[in-house]
Amino acid sequence: MRRRRSTTERQHYETDSGEDSETETMRCISCQEDYDAREGGTCKECYDEANETEEDLKREIDDLKAKVAFLRFWAPFDSPHSPYYAAKFHPPCYSDVVLVASGDSSGTGPFPPVPAHKAVLASRSPVFRAMLENEMQESRSGTIKISDVSYEALRAFVNYLYTAEASVDEPMAYALLVLAEKYQVKHLKTYCEKFLVSILNWDNSIGSYAFAHQHNAKLVVEAAMSLITDNMDKLTKREEYLELKEKDPRLIVEIYEASLCKQVNTAASKDSSQKT
Amino acid sequence: MRRRRSTTERQHYETDSGEDSETETMRCISCQEDYDAREGGTCKECYDEANETEEDLKREIDDLKAKVAFLRFWAPFDSPHSPYYAAKFHPPCYSDVVLVASGDSSGTGPFPPVPAHKAVLASRSPVFRAMLENEMQESRSGTIKISDVSYEALRAFVNYLYTAEASVDEPMAYALLVLAEKYQVKHLKTYCEKFLVSILNWDNSIGSYAFAHQHNAKLVVEAAMSLITDNMDKLTKREEYLELKEKDPRLIVEIYEASLCKQVNTAASKDSSQKT
Repeated sequence: MRRRRSTTERQHYETDSGEDSETETMRCISCQEDYDAREGGTCKECYDEANETEEDLKREIDDLKAKVAFLRFWAPFDSPHSPYYAAKFHPPCYSDVVLVASGDSSGTGPFPPVPAHKAVLASRSPVFRAMLENEMQESRSGTIKISDVSYEALRAFVNYLYTAEASVDEPMAYALLVLAEKYQVKHLKTYCEKFLVSILNWDNSIGSYAFAHQHNAKLVVEAAMSLITDNMDKLTKREEYLELKEKDPRLIVEIYEASLCKQVNTAASKDSSQKT
Repeated sequence: MRRRRSTTERQHYETDSGEDSETETMRCISCQEDYDAREGGTCKECYDEANETEEDLKREIDDLKAKVAFLRFWAPFDSPHSPYYAAKFHPPCYSDVVLVASGDSSGTGPFPPVPAHKAVLASRSPVFRAMLENEMQESRSGTIKISDVSYEALRAFVNYLYTAEASVDEPMAYALLVLAEKYQVKHLKTYCEKFLVSILNWDNSIGSYAFAHQHNAKLVVEAAMSLITDNMDKLTKREEYLELKEKDPRLIVEIYEASLCKQVNTAASKDSSQKT
């Protein structure tokens, strides 16, 4: 019985009922802490198996990271994600098309055109592909005008097409989501949606909800809606509420409908739990 | 004591010593099987934690896979890895350079040049980058001759530069490893080395060892060497042994040295284990 003594030990304790009883503590082979034998964990086999699974998953992650690093492109201009950024070394980029931000309202322009490759644009965006394949004016001239976008957003957009990376704040995430939607770059759209959901709070919830609705960003719509319907009591006090009611009352109606639906469901579930 | 009864139960059993004793079985919350309480597993907290970790890792894997899919390029020619392969649809690829397999010994040529993009070649291979940046003849002519390579291997090589994928058998893995080494495409070299290690067996071990030595494929050298030194008794009977002894005796010497070193270490470890 040596092994038993090494992993468990008997002790006496008082139960709530005050009856004198006996329990057993076991040593967890993961955290090495003792635990009450009644708090059943896993057997040794399952523990070992779980460890192996974790190792396999970590190996797969390393392989995928290496693949991403290999497939990632240096953007054909100076960018924090370019391996040439630090060295400030710019290899010839063999660019065959340029993108121009038309309608940068910052007033600090004119801005240099952003060099790119037709092959990259066409492989990342079905819209660019159609534009270039159909020998439209853009393809002939080698210049693609991107309207209603800041130069910074355009650079970040093109950079994402090459590297699948972007460092965004809230305004940049909005700008990139608009471009991702317009040029059907799904991967970037999801990236922006996840970011906007991650920074969602009561103060930006109505604005995010209205924006996401306009640009068909379902992830953000759902997250914002659930946050808003959790705070209905504070809703009508907000300025954004009054503005949205003016601008697009249908969106306000949707909020009330969602909230009503939530109340009904909660009541129903309460009801059924009382019956059981 | 309800919870205790639900997770554990007492039973009597005979120990080897024949003494009548009491043990406790616990229900594993992972596989739901009973296990001997003496076979200590993990506590519930560690089990839950391990589960969460696994979920996080799986999410990370999904994100990375999506990134790879986004960054992957369609190769500018028909390839099983191209999304256009099935549809047999070939978009214009805006190619600005072609690679030509010079010295395909299959005799079934001449073969069409393989279209590519300077930007892709330069971003995947420092050798191509230097070749193209230094305005060498290749850059001016827009034609890069790849010598001593089959047309099929060249296509697979270029395709890998675009997709980070290849479907290889043993000869193709050898051919691609040679190209990866020549053009310093590390990711492809590792891919080929891992494949060759995975199909390593006694029959191909000496051949793999010699090849890997020649092309500086350390993973394969180590794996083959350890397999060979485990079978020294059969070594001298093999034809490849005699051929290699003729062709490059130094490699044979390295095998004997490694084997000797192994014997010494084994003896030493045996010795120390006897002492303790």
